[in-house]
Amino acid sequence: MEPIGHRRWAIADGYLPAWSHGPEPEMVSHESVNILNAGPTDARVELMLYFEDRPPAGPYRLTVPAMRTVHQRINDLDPPVPTNLGYACVITADVPVVVQHTRLDSRQAENALFSTLAAPG
Amino acid sequence: MEPIGHRRWAIADGYLPAWSHGPEPEMVSHESVNILNAGPTDARVELMLYFEDRPPAGPYRLTVPAMRTVHQRINDLDPPVPTNLGYACVITADVPVVVQHTRLDSRQAENALFSTLAAPG
Amino acid sequence: MEPIGHRRWAIADGYLPAWSHGPEPEMVSHESVNILNAGPTDARVELMLYFEDRPPAGPYRLTVPAMRTVHQRINDLDPPVPTNLGYACVITADVPVVVQHTRLDSRQAENALFSTLAAPG
Amino acid sequence: MEPIGHRRWAIADGYLPAWSHGPEPEMVSHESVNILNAGPTDARVELMLYFEDRPPAGPYRLTVPAMRTVHQRINDLDPPVPTNLGYACVITADVPVVVQHTRLDSRQAENALFSTLAAPG
Repeated sequence: MEPIGHRRWAIADGYLPAWSHGPEPEMVSHESVNILNAGPTDARVELMLYFEDRPPAGPYRLTVPAMRTVHQRINDLDPPVPTNLGYACVITADVPVVVQHTRLDSRQAENALFSTLAAPG
Repeated sequence: MEPIGHRRWAIADGYLPAWSHGPEPEMVSHESVNILNAGPTDARVELMLYFEDRPPAGPYRLTVPAMRTVHQRINDLDPPVPTNLGYACVITADVPVVVQHTRLDSRQAENALFSTLAAPG
Repeated sequence: MEPIGHRRWAIADGYLPAWSHGPEPEMVSHESVNILNAGPTDARVELMLYFEDRPPAGPYRLTVPAMRTVHQRINDLDPPVPTNLGYACVITADVPVVVQHTRLDSRQAENALFSTLAAPG
Repeated sequence: MEPIGHRRWAIADGYLPAWSHGPEPEMVSHESVNILNAGPTDARVELMLYFEDRPPAGPYRLTVPAMRTVHQRINDLDPPVPTNLGYACVITADVPVVVQHTRLDSRQAENALFSTLAAPG
């Protein structure tokens, strides 16, 4: 059976909050791109970032080993992604993967949280 | 390869909270329609709004340039969208785009947040 | 062009929190099934509810007029849906509609919120 | 008509918060995999868990009876799933089911909540 997932995904609402409350590292405002590679071959993954007012950035490259997941904090990408600036992201992989996008926003004393499936295509 | 996305998307749960807590502009209760155009051609986009008790409004028109994203606050549309009133939205574009829908609700002291993929079709 | 959506949708995580904080009606813990009918024909919609420990309930019937949306609070269905009990829901319509599922949980002093696309199929 | 759903689903962002605030059991930080079986045959379901730094765990097995839903707390799986460690999950069933993934995070005094459709495929 074909490994579950798709080779291309997109996230339209990226945004790194600019400040935080609470203990590090768990409660730092952050976003993560969560990638599952349930197949038998390592996945070479590229992230391209799109902005409102400037050219795209990337590709950022990472490997998701076979039968593993990587929960990549966007805050940890190098070169860094600007905070308090909307962005979007296209994720491409050379084998099928599954992508979910999560934000923890602790700008106020109690954290807010969302997660959503990325858009396959 | 075809640019990622679809030419038509829908959001069924639109709602602009009527009040807010916290510093502007980040913590004002709002919704955004977040559109990614990862393709090589500018996208002409139309939003139609649907209500429970009145005829549809729109189309609201905007352009998402090639290789860019637009995070459009619904609160900033003109003519304005009523607050504290449920609505839904159909987004159409002349090239493939990706659409995600987000609400920040700061009616209480600590903000709540959700985001979800829109429905392609 | 075919109206956007599908004739059948499902929600797997239904749950009505059993208590609330904050002003009524906005801040009462609730769930809503949000249905968009962007087509030219009224939609006759049926909701079937599924539980862990008892037979299904329903169908609950409602009409979503042409070019309108209905944001139906699950709390307002008759006969009432039990609180503090997991359920799931299948939504069927005689014309294409779009369905999104939202929960506002105000059991603690600050509300939590999620919304997600239902599963078409 | 074929029962609604798919035989395989994936969740890419699993994470069990390591601490909690508020009354048990409702406000304990937890995740649930919510499975609807709206068809006429019991569903035999298997969960495989994937990690960043170790081999997969499972399969965890459960049955979702015909015309029922099961809201399985990940915290209650046996052997237990580690807290404060990212994971992903593939859900397979022998008949079509619908899967939704929810996290309640009460590490801070007010709970945060998300829910999202799993990825079919």
